[in-house]
Amino acid sequence: MNEDQIVQMIRKRYGGSGRGLIQGIGDDAAVLRPRGSREYWVITTDMLLEDVDFRRTWLTPAQLGHKALAVNLSDLAAMGAQPRYFTAALALPPGIRPSWIQACYQGMMRLARKHEALLIGGDLSRSPAGIQITITAIGTSAQKPILRSGGRPGDILFVTGVLGRAAAGLALLQRGRTRGNNPAERRALNSHLTPQPRCKAGMWLAGCGLVRGMMDLSDGISMDLARMCEACGTGAEIFGSRLPVFAAARGWQCDPVELALDGGEDFELLFAVSARKADYLEAVYPSRLPPIHRIGRLRRERGVFWRVEVGSAPRRLASGGFDHFRHPRPKRWKAGKFPNGTKLSGA
Amino acid sequence: MNEDQIVQMIRKRYGGSGRGLIQGIGDDAAVLRPRGSREYWVITTDMLLEDVDFRRTWLTPAQLGHKALAVNLSDLAAMGAQPRYFTAALALPPGIRPSWIQACYQGMMRLARKHEALLIGGDLSRSPAGIQITITAIGTSAQKPILRSGGRPGDILFVTGVLGRAAAGLALLQRGRTRGNNPAERRALNSHLTPQPRCKAGMWLAGCGLVRGMMDLSDGISMDLARMCEACGTGAEIFGSRLPVFAAARGWQCDPVELALDGGEDFELLFAVSARKADYLEAVYPSRLPPIHRIGRLRRERGVFWRVEVGSAPRRLASGGFDHFRHPRPKRWKAGKFPNGTKLSGA
Repeated sequence: MNEDQIVQMIRKRYGGSGRGLIQGIGDDAAVLRPRGSREYWVITTDMLLEDVDFRRTWLTPAQLGHKALAVNLSDLAAMGAQPRYFTAALALPPGIRPSWIQACYQGMMRLARKHEALLIGGDLSRSPAGIQITITAIGTSAQKPILRSGGRPGDILFVTGVLGRAAAGLALLQRGRTRGNNPAERRALNSHLTPQPRCKAGMWLAGCGLVRGMMDLSDGISMDLARMCEACGTGAEIFGSRLPVFAAARGWQCDPVELALDGGEDFELLFAVSARKADYLEAVYPSRLPPIHRIGRLRRERGVFWRVEVGSAPRRLASGGFDHFRHPRPKRWKAGKFPNGTKLSGA
Repeated sequence: MNEDQIVQMIRKRYGGSGRGLIQGIGDDAAVLRPRGSREYWVITTDMLLEDVDFRRTWLTPAQLGHKALAVNLSDLAAMGAQPRYFTAALALPPGIRPSWIQACYQGMMRLARKHEALLIGGDLSRSPAGIQITITAIGTSAQKPILRSGGRPGDILFVTGVLGRAAAGLALLQRGRTRGNNPAERRALNSHLTPQPRCKAGMWLAGCGLVRGMMDLSDGISMDLARMCEACGTGAEIFGSRLPVFAAARGWQCDPVELALDGGEDFELLFAVSARKADYLEAVYPSRLPPIHRIGRLRRERGVFWRVEVGSAPRRLASGGFDHFRHPRPKRWKAGKFPNGTKLSGA
């Protein structure tokens, strides 16, 4: 079984329903309705494990603290929720000093303050091997949170920001480049090490009333879009010429399109908007928020397809993103491949 | 720094306040007030790590799932909250089969159904070494949750159930006895492997209006009572003859009183009641709930003291319970010692 199949099995057999639970397992976060409250509560849990999700030599304790919180806030952003509270459980191997713990919390709290999230509790334990951080984040939303399942055939797909930049940063780290020599390298490293969750964009998008489905991009759009399609009961097509790729990676012997499709940890938002409303959304979307790009559309026919341009021949896209239970090696960017075995060339 | 000092440092520097947060870091769970709701929300996070908190050969996957949830529900019980929702993050090393995952969830869900808690989400990851389960549990309470800090000098201290039975079970496991040969051994093993969180007792105690302070016993009463005293700004004395010890352990070359004082993971409740109301509480406490025992009282003078009987000479009790950052070896029961080095003899 792969990761998604295990999650499906758990959801079907053990997932709760009723009693104030609006959305359980299967979305970026769970949605609850506290009795008597006018707010929705949104709850998510994500862990970072040493040598699976990060290497200790690649980042500072402050960067690790930042990232552990960021991946959780990104799930709240995907629901359009305002971060409110979080707990942090740290398992630490022998030899970790109090100053390390303090720096880790400092990095976490800098990001928390920026997004107005309060640390309310947690757990501390020794770890027999490796650092592990598990965070549970809670957000609130005045309107019903946007689920990934809301998109309909014909909807236009948008993403925020740039895709594949975090994977480009990871490629640099894997070559031992922990410091960037120029602005592009530093941007790529920052995307990987200290991702900025798109909370403000997510809240605006949820509040504008134009977005039908939304999720965050954690495992690469080839895999995550397939998940959105599964939830919506649709297929999709994306247009290669429209992908906001990280072009600088071309100079680093990387294919920016492959990075954009299969590189994980961008923590950008993917969202679906009715075709009738897409122009209006682009017109009113605030310029102070990260830029948005149309990248394709949902379609009735199942499967995720790729076209270089609108009108050019479609090719089926295989999920090349990251799956915890498919790859036996430590988490890393993996080149995407078409089913016919030809590598995807940059558009 | 020991575990409590690290938690203090985190609480002082980074602990949140305001914005609906009634109680942050420092109690068994955090307490929140959702906007517009008449309920209090209570949130706790606890992790279990292989070779720190358990050994894989000691328990079945179902027992592990049970225990990972039980330690969290026990924190909700300590606040008097009704369990409502939980998330489960599992990190699993290579070689764990889907059937193992299923059995683990089955054990978790059996306990969850008993206490009416819904599984609402989680995370799954490969682990480079060892099984780790982190659970975040959410409960609700119509009345203000009982904090550990509410006790006052003169208050009578009570505990539920039997103390030291889980530690007696652990002692059996450490001798390779994973199956009990008689009812006492099986009770001890069950206490350690599948602890029963005292949710119903906790809710009754919080609802009766007679309890001023409450916490659960996870690290041994010698350490946990010192924590309650710290939170209340008091000292305490306990009466050896009143401790509900697990007498059967005497036949297993264990000292039941040491186990009761310093053995962890009993997950019973410790609570403080005004001296004027203690008799009334005992009279009205329902017989269907786990029995309660007076074990001592809070006092104005700092320090935790031990007397064999009311009226006999007090001796200062050192904290001998479990601290994650003090003991360099895997978590295990540790014999308690007086500061003068003489071992505590059974009363």
